[in-house]
Amino acid sequence: MRIGIDTKGGDKGIDEIIKGTFEAYNIQRFTPVFLGDTEKIKLKIDEFKYKFDDIDIIEAPEVITNEDDPTLAIRRKKNSTIVVGANLLSDNKIDALISSGSTGALLASSIFIVKRIEGIERTALSVFLPTAIGKTLLLDAGANMDCKPSYFLDFAIMGSIYLNKVLGINNPKVGLLNVGTEEGKGNKQSKEAFDILSKSNLNFIGNVEARDLISGVADVIVCDGFAGNIALKSFEGVAISLIRQMKSVFNNNLKTKISGLLVKSSLKEMLKQYDYRETGGAPLLGVKKPIFKAHGSSDALAYKNAIFQTIKFTENNVISEIEKKLAEGNINE
Amino acid sequence: MRIGIDTKGGDKGIDEIIKGTFEAYNIQRFTPVFLGDTEKIKLKIDEFKYKFDDIDIIEAPEVITNEDDPTLAIRRKKNSTIVVGANLLSDNKIDALISSGSTGALLASSIFIVKRIEGIERTALSVFLPTAIGKTLLLDAGANMDCKPSYFLDFAIMGSIYLNKVLGINNPKVGLLNVGTEEGKGNKQSKEAFDILSKSNLNFIGNVEARDLISGVADVIVCDGFAGNIALKSFEGVAISLIRQMKSVFNNNLKTKISGLLVKSSLKEMLKQYDYRETGGAPLLGVKKPIFKAHGSSDALAYKNAIFQTIKFTENNVISEIEKKLAEGNINE
Repeated sequence: MRIGIDTKGGDKGIDEIIKGTFEAYNIQRFTPVFLGDTEKIKLKIDEFKYKFDDIDIIEAPEVITNEDDPTLAIRRKKNSTIVVGANLLSDNKIDALISSGSTGALLASSIFIVKRIEGIERTALSVFLPTAIGKTLLLDAGANMDCKPSYFLDFAIMGSIYLNKVLGINNPKVGLLNVGTEEGKGNKQSKEAFDILSKSNLNFIGNVEARDLISGVADVIVCDGFAGNIALKSFEGVAISLIRQMKSVFNNNLKTKISGLLVKSSLKEMLKQYDYRETGGAPLLGVKKPIFKAHGSSDALAYKNAIFQTIKFTENNVISEIEKKLAEGNINE
Repeated sequence: MRIGIDTKGGDKGIDEIIKGTFEAYNIQRFTPVFLGDTEKIKLKIDEFKYKFDDIDIIEAPEVITNEDDPTLAIRRKKNSTIVVGANLLSDNKIDALISSGSTGALLASSIFIVKRIEGIERTALSVFLPTAIGKTLLLDAGANMDCKPSYFLDFAIMGSIYLNKVLGINNPKVGLLNVGTEEGKGNKQSKEAFDILSKSNLNFIGNVEARDLISGVADVIVCDGFAGNIALKSFEGVAISLIRQMKSVFNNNLKTKISGLLVKSSLKEMLKQYDYRETGGAPLLGVKKPIFKAHGSSDALAYKNAIFQTIKFTENNVISEIEKKLAEGNINE
């Protein structure tokens, strides 16, 4: 399997990306196809004394930043890592693409270069959230701001297949993110989406409140990209802030410092589930080829996990399963 | 000051409501006007041996539950605590109303019985969120599901005046809840709201991401009731779950139990800011009279604080300030 790896995205720089790739490579073989400045990549691999039996490096000197307009940028920056990667993917020269660069550019490339799966109206960003009993897949987590209720059905189908193929969950429970659990709650969009999902043959369990994102009541939770992004970032913000405050409490005085030493390992284990690096990446669902968005502040550990996730996604043919399901067309009961 | 107190709302029953009222009364004098079953209220007060110098009890035998349709219920259940309270408020027989009952019914009563302030298009539920440096007011936190962008300006004006009059914040910083900080981010609604807020003479600081709800970058954050509810409940859900998990870690083994004893008081102090009971209630902004929604699971402490908050809101003439500002009409620069 040839995996395109964008060495220019991300806040932590090329070092962590190459380190993470090598760590993954040592556990599970694949062909890394590094995208970026060829010389710089070679120098880094030499500097770290990494030995890859099988490797490819493709020159892509440009980078699309978060300040660029995504749709314009993918037309103008033809030599950017993301555009070069998307073209390789479209031409079957790589099997998957991972980037921690601009989500917008990745999304635009997925739509205009790699193209959407026949029958899917919108590409969605899907993110795993840690829950009390495992994890929940939230989509759309920020790709589509203004959604028609019909998109929610696509999101639910894609999320269900993803969980089934990658985590082995049989008939995943699908929830609709809403302001109350009762039918009839919410805005115009969510009421219409509720009707559409109710008529599908998915395992639709109804509305799910944002406070239950963390309780694990549903395996997949669907929403528009605006609400999904608000839910996700509120979740992340509170978790990060609370964990930081908690850690600082242990620094209060001698007594709390001793307390910190005694609880450290147990606390670390508990907090591991809130570490985005353990999950790695988020697939763009609805595209014809595997494209994974890694967190902007990914380090080597996050990269390693994003690669494992990408391999699993690709090996398990999630995309062809989605295509098959849509071709069958028996979505409604 | 006569404060109407709904003794039928809330999950914890009448005991906590009466206890909280008495605790508040012992610190700051006001006239409690209990709404509910007269005999039951009298019996409870006797049972607890509470002495009020000044008290009123109004018979209101019915209750509107969360299962009732709010608009229908306020027409049909004329003897419910909320409808009786709203009528007393409208007739100037009480100065403020507190309820931990159905938010929908409270909202419907505020619109159809107490009425909106002239010039305000929608009533908003405003909630304080704890931040790293104090607190942020979020509105609308769930009253209006489908909003026009123009409502956001009302929310921002009302929130700013509330913070100025109640917390003494000069020229409060107003943020727009959005998926990114840059101008041009978001859905159609938030882009239009951004334009409207930019043209106002409020201290508009631009877009605020949901992860910054907790960082205190803005004093007031405005959004529609759907997004506000999602943000708020995601925030609450994660905070509650993390705190619960953290506490359970201290029960792991002897070492962690000792650790827990050593850090207990410091941790308790830190966690106090995440306790909704410390804030008490959320005003319905945009109504002609003070109406406070107390949390559904309010106990005596939460009630006590909701009463203090209601007194402060009423004494500081927040509503007449909003009316004045709207009458002046110089909202745009």
